[in-house]
Formats: sequence, C-alpha cells, structure tokens
Amino acid sequence: MSDESRTPDAYARAGVDIAAGNEAVSRYKAVLGAWRHPDQLDAIGGFGGLFRLPGGGDRALVASADGVGTKILIAAELQRYDGVGRDLVNHCVNDILVVNASPMFFLDYFAVGKLDPAVAAAVVQGCANACRAHNCALLGGETAEMPGLYAPGHFDLAGTIVGIVDMKDVPKPESVEPGDAIVGLPSVGLHTNGYSLARALISREEWGDAFDGGTYADALLAEHPSYYDAVRAIQRVATVKTMAHITGGGLLENVPRTLPPNVKAIFEQSRWAVPPIMQTLVQRGALAHEERYRTLNMGVGYTLVVPFTDAQKAVDAVPGAKVVGWIEARAGDDPHVVIHEARA
Amino acid sequence: MSDESRTPDAYARAGVDIAAGNEAVSRYKAVLGAWRHPDQLDAIGGFGGLFRLPGGGDRALVASADGVGTKILIAAELQRYDGVGRDLVNHCVNDILVVNASPMFFLDYFAVGKLDPAVAAAVVQGCANACRAHNCALLGGETAEMPGLYAPGHFDLAGTIVGIVDMKDVPKPESVEPGDAIVGLPSVGLHTNGYSLARALISREEWGDAFDGGTYADALLAEHPSYYDAVRAIQRVATVKTMAHITGGGLLENVPRTLPPNVKAIFEQSRWAVPPIMQTLVQRGALAHEERYRTLNMGVGYTLVVPFTDAQKAVDAVPGAKVVGWIEARAGDDPHVVIHEARA
Repeated sequence: MSDESRTPDAYARAGVDIAAGNEAVSRYKAVLGAWRHPDQLDAIGGFGGLFRLPGGGDRALVASADGVGTKILIAAELQRYDGVGRDLVNHCVNDILVVNASPMFFLDYFAVGKLDPAVAAAVVQGCANACRAHNCALLGGETAEMPGLYAPGHFDLAGTIVGIVDMKDVPKPESVEPGDAIVGLPSVGLHTNGYSLARALISREEWGDAFDGGTYADALLAEHPSYYDAVRAIQRVATVKTMAHITGGGLLENVPRTLPPNVKAIFEQSRWAVPPIMQTLVQRGALAHEERYRTLNMGVGYTLVVPFTDAQKAVDAVPGAKVVGWIEARAGDDPHVVIHEARA
Repeated sequence: MSDESRTPDAYARAGVDIAAGNEAVSRYKAVLGAWRHPDQLDAIGGFGGLFRLPGGGDRALVASADGVGTKILIAAELQRYDGVGRDLVNHCVNDILVVNASPMFFLDYFAVGKLDPAVAAAVVQGCANACRAHNCALLGGETAEMPGLYAPGHFDLAGTIVGIVDMKDVPKPESVEPGDAIVGLPSVGLHTNGYSLARALISREEWGDAFDGGTYADALLAEHPSYYDAVRAIQRVATVKTMAHITGGGLLENVPRTLPPNVKAIFEQSRWAVPPIMQTLVQRGALAHEERYRTLNMGVGYTLVVPFTDAQKAVDAVPGAKVVGWIEARAGDDPHVVIHEARA
C-alpha cells in the first residue's frame, strides 16, 4: 500500500533531500512562469521540453538535460569509465522518447578535478557509441578542469539531447481510459537513480564480492538501457496512448506525470521480477513501500499505456515486455498510482 | 612576442593542465572521427556544432555546451548566486553567435552536494533573466543532488544552448584577406576563464578589499556580457567576415580558430585598455606574454574581422568597440597571432 505522507528515511540518511527537491521544483515554476517563449509548447510530464520548429510546419524540437547521478562515484572508484557515457545518452534518449521524439544530436559536459586525457576519452567514447547506436550526432561538448571543486579522480558527467517529433505523433494522455493496459519494459538495475542510497547500503568493501552471477559492482554499474527500439517495435503493432520513463521518483512519481487526473494506474507487482540488487537494497534499508517505489524503479524501466485489445500484441513485440498493470477511474483524493506488492 | 613552446607555469601551478587539455581534445577527435552523422555540418572553429535542419531548407541548428569554470567557487563562497546563471547563458549566446546563430532555447544542469532550494532558484533565476533578454526559452534543466561528489555549499553549473542560422549567413572565414581590420569588443573582466589562476593569485582574505572602485570580489564576479546586440549592430553597417569569442585560450587560441591558414592576426595592445584585474594577475603571477594571452582575454571579449573600409562604421556602431588589429599574409611557420604589447 502506498503511504504518501511517510518520510523516506533511508534516502534522506544517504544525503538526498526529496522535500528540498520538490521545493526547488516549485520555486523553478515561479521563475519560469514569469515569462514563456511563444514557441515553447506544453510538455508532457516534463520529460522533455518542446519548442515549435520555426518555419517547420507542425514539427517540434524536443530537448532534455540530465546527469548520471552518483553512479559516477562508483565508476570513478572502480575506474570503469566507458559505461557512464552510454548510461547518460540512453537516459536522455528515453526521456525524449516519452514524447515520441527521435534523437538528432547530443552534447556532453564532462568536469574533473584533474584532467586525465585517457579517462576523458573513455567517457566520451561511451557517449559516442550510444549516440551512434541511435543515429544521433555527438555535436559538441565541454571538458572542464576545475581543481578545488572536484576531488582528484572524481568527475561529473551531464548532457543534453535534442530530438524532433511531428506534433501529430506526440502521445495524447487524455485518450487514456479505464481498462487500458500498462505494458512495462524491464529495467536491468538502478539505471541512473538511487545511487546515493545504494552507496550507503552497500559498502565499498563489498563491491568486489560475488553477487547475482557477477559482483556487486557489476550489478551497480549495469548500464541504463535505451528503450528506443522496443518502443518503436510496440508502436508498430499497438496504439500507444502515453508513456513514462521510470527514473528518479520511480513508478509513483513518473507514471502520474503522463496521465490525466481522472484515471489512476494500478500495478500488480507479481507480474514482473524485481532485480536482485533492488531486493538487496529493500532488505538492507528496510525500505518502506513508498520509499521503494519512489527511489528505485523496482524492475520496470519504462511504461506504455495501450488499449486492452492491443496489450498482447505489444508484449509479443518485445522480449521481456509484460503487462504490469491497468488503468482505473480515479475519483476525489484517490492516489494516482497504486502498487499491489507480491506477498512472499 | 609569442613563444608557443613556453610552459604556462602559473596556470599549471594553479592546477590547470593545458597540455592535458590539448591531449584530451586530440583523443576526442579520434573518437568523433570514427563516425559522423550525415546532417552534421562543418563547424567554424568549434564554437558551436552545426546540424542541418531536417526538411528546413538551408537552415542549421547550432548548439554549444559550456560551464562557468571555478568562478563558481568564488560565487559559492560569497553566496552571490544570481550572476553565474547570466555568465553561463551569455557565454553560450556568444559562442553560437560566432556562426551567426540566434538563440532559440537553453537548458541548464545544476549539481550540488546539498540542495538549498533558495540557492537553486537564484541560480536558475539568473539563467532565466539572461534567456529572456535574448528571447530564448529556458526549455528545461536538471537539478542533481550528489552528496560525496560536491562538498556542502559547492555546486556546479553547466548549460547547453540551441540556436538557428540560415546557412547563407554563416561567416565565411576564407574571405578574410590581408588589410582587413579586426574590431574588438571590450571585456569587463575574466568572464568565465582563468579563475583557477585568479584564485591562486588573489587570496580569499583579499576578496573584500577595495579594488578598482569596488572590491576584488566585484571585479572577479563581473558578469560575462552578451555581445549579441553589439554584433547585430555592427552587422547592420559593416560586412563581417569572421568572428571569435575570446574564452579559454585567449586571443592566441580563439582567433586562429576562425581564420584561414594563409593569414595571421596582428594585435596592437596599445589600442585597447587591459582591465585592472588582469593587470593585477599579470603582475602577481609574473605571467609571461604567452601565458597572459592564452589564459586571459586581456581586455578583448569578442573580435570581428571587417574590410578596412568598414572599420570606422563598425566601431562607431557600438560604444567601446575599437580597431584592435589587422590581418596580414601568413607564410610558412609564421604564428597565427602576433600581439604587440604596449610598453610602459
């Protein structure tokens, strides 16, 4: 059962203040509400910003900025540098995919305390590989050496993607109705969220220990997949009404962002597998229901709402895809998301 | 006289390794050379990346990513948060202005150790103000709380701008010829480069001391101006053949990026004023010629090459604009830039 009033203790103990994040978002809204460019279009759930293409008829550019979070610190400590570039690009691809945009180009920002050209090249190589896999230009970037801000060996990586979409192809969340099915695409691990919590619960000393057929480090660094091909495959056989990329905020916060207020999403967790690394975090952190589903993706990386009659075709189109829930009518103060957990 | 073999000692002592930076750039070229998107166009000097607008006729999107460098650390220490947003946006605007692009939208990346919503809002407000001044949408952004990567009170700020240009309006550096004049637009200080050096040479204890009509802090935090209106004013009265934004690398590295190999730029430093803060850095750091002009802008924030006959009209169009040099033929191993310094 969801309990939205609960303070997410373990995450806060790990140094991430969700209330401060929400307060910042509300202040940003005030800042951004003061003026809006006339070509800026309403976004769907804030996964990507839409800007009407000047002279481009009914097309819009779609842009999103993101980082890799403190997964960076694990990669830096283990000197495994190429994965974070793919994590970042794939994350950005998935974000603009929510509004059905296809990537055009990407730019990275790589900041370090002390610049090691081999490390920089490995990070950028990862970005380049993931860009190429999406026929996306790696159009530019910035490398900044900032002694005093980053400790030696530490770095940060962020990026911005720009894609394009025909406005007629932008999903229409208002078409979602009770009885629709929710198709989930499997996550492979934490992706790019929840790492401050994971680092608090799995100590540096354990990273090399055997876990789930590899090591804890392998599980923690499992790369954020792109859902681009899977979504396109489903769209070829099913009507997709709305989608969500399950990042920070989990199913509880990301799914409602792309639903109209008169419906709610019901998830039945017995329908999918929770990755072992998340089972470990839930257990060690004694994470309550809301904390699990707000901090972690819990095994679902991306959701698509399709008509009930298209659900089977959709899951047949992509290995691993599953019907993970359905849409019901929402009234009054009903929660936007309800997750029924599997019982042991 | 330029002496390109000299090691830039003071900057290296301040923790910034220019050789490592060059090595990273050369490795990036290898990474990026392996595959190139067919719609990616040749950039001019790398200030912005160009991408042919799909279905957009002869127009290109122009994008650039940048940060504020360790100016961030001074702003954080003094809790003066709104200026860095304007610094960043104006820097990005100037970068894509080199290819004559007009801004469309901007996205920020704001990363902190501990999120303070008031600080975050102040930083984003600065970005929003500078965006609005350029009729540029603040289309999105990412706020990341990353304990363990950033110290409490520390933050980083980066951003990506996307603009648009008609291909026929992209400057044609190959039209530059001996006898052309170089018009310089004045800088107001360090802008967003050389701060690791400045922090090494001007101690925290001095920041509040009187300097040049304000304090050292005021001089150090003077905001990176936008040259957008000035450049547009000059373009209305003069033919502009090529331009450069004088950022990291100074006149020595930025001007050649947008010149053909058969010409060189001659600067006569007596023609413009070096801001007092740079005189102080030069003196305290005993910065040799090359180091001054590679690490600092030394008073020139932006350059435009115009025909000799347009030079007077150009400088009359913008207060503070000056003819700061001229173009000569370059042969063999001639340097690309020669700077004649004023003698005391």
